[in-house]
Amino acid sequence: MDESPQPHRVVIVGGGFGGLQVAQRLRRAPVALTLVDRRNFHLFQPLLYQVATGALSPGEIASPLRGVLKRHRNATVVMGDVTGIDLEGRTIAVSQAGERRAEISYDTLVVAAGAGHSYFGNDHWAAHAPGLKSLEDALELRRRVLSAFEAAEIEPDPEIQRALLTFVVVGAGPTGVELAGQISEIARDTVKRDFRHIDPTTASIILVEGADRVLTAFPPSLSAKAERQLRTLGVTVRTELFVVDVDAEGVTLKAAGGDAQERLASRTIVWAAGVAASPLAAQLAEATGAPLDRAGRVTVEPDLSLPGRPEVFVLGDMVRVSDGEGGQIPLPGVAPAAMQQGRHAAKVIRARLAGGEPPKPFRYVDKGNLATIGRMKAVGEIKGLRLSGTIAWLGWLFIHLFYLTGLQNRFLVFVRWTVSFLTRGRGARLITGGDDDPGRLSGEAPPTG
Amino acid sequence: MDESPQPHRVVIVGGGFGGLQVAQRLRRAPVALTLVDRRNFHLFQPLLYQVATGALSPGEIASPLRGVLKRHRNATVVMGDVTGIDLEGRTIAVSQAGERRAEISYDTLVVAAGAGHSYFGNDHWAAHAPGLKSLEDALELRRRVLSAFEAAEIEPDPEIQRALLTFVVVGAGPTGVELAGQISEIARDTVKRDFRHIDPTTASIILVEGADRVLTAFPPSLSAKAERQLRTLGVTVRTELFVVDVDAEGVTLKAAGGDAQERLASRTIVWAAGVAASPLAAQLAEATGAPLDRAGRVTVEPDLSLPGRPEVFVLGDMVRVSDGEGGQIPLPGVAPAAMQQGRHAAKVIRARLAGGEPPKPFRYVDKGNLATIGRMKAVGEIKGLRLSGTIAWLGWLFIHLFYLTGLQNRFLVFVRWTVSFLTRGRGARLITGGDDDPGRLSGEAPPTG
Repeated sequence: MDESPQPHRVVIVGGGFGGLQVAQRLRRAPVALTLVDRRNFHLFQPLLYQVATGALSPGEIASPLRGVLKRHRNATVVMGDVTGIDLEGRTIAVSQAGERRAEISYDTLVVAAGAGHSYFGNDHWAAHAPGLKSLEDALELRRRVLSAFEAAEIEPDPEIQRALLTFVVVGAGPTGVELAGQISEIARDTVKRDFRHIDPTTASIILVEGADRVLTAFPPSLSAKAERQLRTLGVTVRTELFVVDVDAEGVTLKAAGGDAQERLASRTIVWAAGVAASPLAAQLAEATGAPLDRAGRVTVEPDLSLPGRPEVFVLGDMVRVSDGEGGQIPLPGVAPAAMQQGRHAAKVIRARLAGGEPPKPFRYVDKGNLATIGRMKAVGEIKGLRLSGTIAWLGWLFIHLFYLTGLQNRFLVFVRWTVSFLTRGRGARLITGGDDDPGRLSGEAPPTG
Repeated sequence: MDESPQPHRVVIVGGGFGGLQVAQRLRRAPVALTLVDRRNFHLFQPLLYQVATGALSPGEIASPLRGVLKRHRNATVVMGDVTGIDLEGRTIAVSQAGERRAEISYDTLVVAAGAGHSYFGNDHWAAHAPGLKSLEDALELRRRVLSAFEAAEIEPDPEIQRALLTFVVVGAGPTGVELAGQISEIARDTVKRDFRHIDPTTASIILVEGADRVLTAFPPSLSAKAERQLRTLGVTVRTELFVVDVDAEGVTLKAAGGDAQERLASRTIVWAAGVAASPLAAQLAEATGAPLDRAGRVTVEPDLSLPGRPEVFVLGDMVRVSDGEGGQIPLPGVAPAAMQQGRHAAKVIRARLAGGEPPKPFRYVDKGNLATIGRMKAVGEIKGLRLSGTIAWLGWLFIHLFYLTGLQNRFLVFVRWTVSFLTRGRGARLITGGDDDPGRLSGEAPPTG
């Protein structure tokens, strides 16, 4: 690779849907590409909640990045944290295990570092109400949900037992709806006959939402359908309620527009409410004066470049895209939006390298929106067509299998889904990790004699 | 279940190969059975090393105990730690998350709590040289092995880079041999083309053993064959060497019968050397005066009961079995031995309940021994027939698939193995967990404004 004049160096931060798409679309471009990610794998986030609820195993929704880019001769993968971006010097600093390890120079930079969850300034809630963004989050959630049933089974105090069998999901966007539906299915189907002292089907699953309906990204008629489907599954939907406190024993709620507070005793609370962009967005906004919104997203130009820095593209869940007329293009925080932005950035980069016309400004093509709720239950809107029930559910299954990275994963997930559908079981409902490390069956005992 | 006179209460501690076998063989017996385990799943330990090396996902070798015993109407599962056994009062104390939660009374007790790893009194080595007994161990090992390549890729100091590409496995029993072979295959096959700055095929994999040959449980001719196969895979086999120290940067060795010390610089050390029985064995030995050996195993009667306590059976990796003539029955620490003991204990319990003749003393039927080394490489001995190479490897694959719990897992593992064989890939080579929690992509940043 070194005999020709040094090729144009493209550095991509983040191997999510947006970043990976850039790398794949530059496969045959005359560039030296470096993809930097904290993890060594691409995560198929739309199915993360299925790991959290024991339907799938982590390896089935994650693909090693080096494997994905193995045949890309122009691509290098670096695993590490991006700790700083020097826009003047055109380098990024990368660290591993907390130590600064490398500086990487770029000619073009693509930042696609995504978003995490936000507790709206109440970060101490995180310990009691974990969110769902990483595989570790999913395994922790799985541990909590399944452990609650185990603890309830041997709990003598009926009040604590009730709190153990009460599950609160905060936030009724797609993730919250999916989680509430799945937890209810665990209680009412999967573990229905598994216990001797408790009846899991009496568990309360409460979905709390600040707005006046679930799935606010959908039309109201579909929200109403989704709510009916949730109720059929045994989920209690509570709208127009805001969280004012979370602790180890429950959550305190306040009615929207009122002062009345309410306390829900629950030992398992899940946070699916707030999203905050990667802190890199704030760094880039500060360095360039670009606007930053309440969710920490930086506003980029219609071609996805950073204002005043045409060589830097920012995309995915960490940006808002200017429409060039003082407003923003409405963009949902979903995988197709990030992928379309990734493809657009790659197109702009290729056009520049070829010396051709710049492509038209980025435009989001909404191909539709699907949210699954449970077994044969889903709602969706595809090109204006509103769907619900089995047909929406089948569409959801098909689309997610189709987009899942890797043929092997597609096949494994298909097998798991088929078996789960037929048996109402969940093959991956393992309780692992946790503070008391139950893995150490007996390893600590020094041998005697 | 409560209208008839209270049935005979059998409590089983441990849902491994031995304990689960007891439960399954008592399915139709007139007993009320309680199975207590720290984990909510049965782990297929013989394939644990494949999780550690990214070939399989955790969920594929674990089966939820409640699922396994779902159709056993006489069985209750309790998840918890057994913190004490009161032989006089015939109760066991169970705790969850460090808190005492329940006391369970028994008429017959079966203790099958297995073994952990032992550092021979050097427990501070554990941090630098983890062993392989639990799923958490396997994921930690996987993280360390894969992270070493990632760190080497961006390490400027050639000496540290070499230490990062040096992997030391201590102990050449089946687990050590399997791990060394697999790590070598990762370096030489799986990630061969994955990096740009290092050549993974130059990695050193060193297998250290105190005895004069690998796989001492096999005849010397098979040990020699295994050693040749390991060398073909690129593993350096070093025998007659003992570990005198382990730290973050390497391991210090001493020649057997000499004083010469040697230092191996390595950032990834795996402990596959010592095994120690569950501490419950020592408690039971102390309470009854039964002998305890150096590995912490208690000696039980020829019918597997505890001396002087015919209502308590102890079995699996935590016991030695008396031959009734002052000696012990030779028993390898493998799944078939534990399963045969479990079946025997169940038979004794059933005979007592039926008031029939006690069965003959326990006898171990050695059906053979197989150890896999790598792709189409294995050694084995089945009823005196010595096998090696492809035929032993196929036998190993078939037997492990056959005994794996759950049809779904069998099928998923079959798919993974087929794909790995065809592509030399490892679909589950994810780096997860770890101290610096790389899962938090950006969740910590509070939104601005």
